[in-house]
Amino acid sequence: MKVNVLFSTAAMALAMLATTQANAKEPIEPIRPVQDVNLAQVELGKKLYFDPRLSKSGFISCNSCHNLSMGGTDNLKTSIGHNWHQGPINAPTVLNSSLNFVQFWDGRAADLKAQAGGPIANPGEMAFTHTLAVDVLQSIPGYVHEFKQVYGKDKIDIDMVTTAIAEFEKTLVTPNSRFDRWLLGDKSALNADELAGYQLFKNSGCVACHNGPAVGGNSFQKMGVVQPYKAKSPAEGRVAVTGKDADRFMFKVPTLRNVEMTYPYFHDGEAETLTEAVDIMGRLQLGKRFSGKENRQIVAFLKTLTGDQPAFQMPILPPSSEKTPAPKPFE
Amino acid sequence: MKVNVLFSTAAMALAMLATTQANAKEPIEPIRPVQDVNLAQVELGKKLYFDPRLSKSGFISCNSCHNLSMGGTDNLKTSIGHNWHQGPINAPTVLNSSLNFVQFWDGRAADLKAQAGGPIANPGEMAFTHTLAVDVLQSIPGYVHEFKQVYGKDKIDIDMVTTAIAEFEKTLVTPNSRFDRWLLGDKSALNADELAGYQLFKNSGCVACHNGPAVGGNSFQKMGVVQPYKAKSPAEGRVAVTGKDADRFMFKVPTLRNVEMTYPYFHDGEAETLTEAVDIMGRLQLGKRFSGKENRQIVAFLKTLTGDQPAFQMPILPPSSEKTPAPKPFE
Repeated sequence: MKVNVLFSTAAMALAMLATTQANAKEPIEPIRPVQDVNLAQVELGKKLYFDPRLSKSGFISCNSCHNLSMGGTDNLKTSIGHNWHQGPINAPTVLNSSLNFVQFWDGRAADLKAQAGGPIANPGEMAFTHTLAVDVLQSIPGYVHEFKQVYGKDKIDIDMVTTAIAEFEKTLVTPNSRFDRWLLGDKSALNADELAGYQLFKNSGCVACHNGPAVGGNSFQKMGVVQPYKAKSPAEGRVAVTGKDADRFMFKVPTLRNVEMTYPYFHDGEAETLTEAVDIMGRLQLGKRFSGKENRQIVAFLKTLTGDQPAFQMPILPPSSEKTPAPKPFE
Repeated sequence: MKVNVLFSTAAMALAMLATTQANAKEPIEPIRPVQDVNLAQVELGKKLYFDPRLSKSGFISCNSCHNLSMGGTDNLKTSIGHNWHQGPINAPTVLNSSLNFVQFWDGRAADLKAQAGGPIANPGEMAFTHTLAVDVLQSIPGYVHEFKQVYGKDKIDIDMVTTAIAEFEKTLVTPNSRFDRWLLGDKSALNADELAGYQLFKNSGCVACHNGPAVGGNSFQKMGVVQPYKAKSPAEGRVAVTGKDADRFMFKVPTLRNVEMTYPYFHDGEAETLTEAVDIMGRLQLGKRFSGKENRQIVAFLKTLTGDQPAFQMPILPPSSEKTPAPKPFE
């Protein structure tokens, strides 16, 4: 089976290279600035993204674990949820998540809208229910007004909530990285080490999985292809969704965009540094030991993938009313 | 003693009324937009204010409990600290805190700079130490660079950290409330009920303590002057600082600026609504039972104290380096 996986990975890599080279001549494509969005939904979704009243405690918002000041993640091995619950998996970045082919490490959500409802109702995360979250919003005059403006309805439902959050998340793309400027023709945007790192990244096979505009996010792959990955975490990946043995340890390939900011790495957050992550990926996925110099060059290339971070004013949330149920942090 | 407190409160009220009436003819003065600040320190302080790496867990920042999207507070009865520790007291708003004569409910910090170091090292809040926090910052190249730009030194110390946070906090004033526009001459800024509420607020004695630009924040007063306050919370106020029996249940009078956003109320957060807070204050501090109409009018007036909220771009934090000690959320 190991041979099969290797073979299919290699075949896919070749196929993808052929496709992308025909278009852009490089397996990585520039991030495009966000094009069509519903701006009213974006502005509403931004508030909801920052609103801890969508959690039972009134303390945890989307931004708690997908912090837009910190690369769209929490920079923790695994996240902290309600009642300081230790999460089972590393919080993936929300940046460029609209480019993922599915959401969550195991792909259990088809899109951002389906994803957005998950943490709200997860007892180990925001620990609320969709009904209670909607009840809270419906009790806040500022939200009732804004939902009506956006959707033309007096009655809020969870579908409107997750639609707005997803629309905001669509704006969280990070164009204009130095690597993208290089792709777009500015040959001075990368230095010699960074370019050498990119050549290594292509020639060693990293691009087999990390390709496209998100440099990943478009396939499931096995963690531990050549050598098994010795995981301390109980997370088993895609098998949790499909129930198929073949999907054990299959995870969505993470985007490498802004990877300098999204430490620690892997689904279990066990790799604390890029140096470590590159070394482990080389050995376990490619059967390759990068030299110190090669590792440094690949890391130098990876750091050129940091793009323009989200730039917007901190939203001001509409205050609760006397009818708003109080949060229950200690129950 | 009850009589003494009442007498001194009344005497002070008269003295203050005399002073303020000589200047502005009203016991409440408009908030002035922020004047002199060190802008470099403000920009650095803004990052530090939002940086959870100043906590042991890497999860709690100043903004966690003094959330600038939510009136500069967490809107919880008492705050959530490290390991979901339940705090002993309601988090006061950071908005207009530069106008407070001392900081914390018990006044144990003389100014914002002295305050800023407290939560970082408090085991029930951010649970870190000043040394460890500085070590983290010193390991982050982006911070080393910015501290050097701001202070001209390579070596970061906690004094630079708290100075910058305090300088940022000085910008968090909220001018331009409807009440201030009325004070400044726009007589159409308040409606009849709001004006009636303000007259009640003045004539009932609320202004004895809630006066000046912050509508409070400039004296300690006893919680429970006319009737004792039946507290469930063990917090005893100023006595914890002075050790004097006379300071038991003496708390800093909170600002009423943006009070619509800073629920729940009192040092223990026991009053969930403005209606409840006004009723309790009337009975316990003034020996007065406001009618339903009076209460509504005072609440209407209080809601005119909501000013322009802080407006700035979400800061982007410099990423950790491979030398940065990892946060320890679960130890």
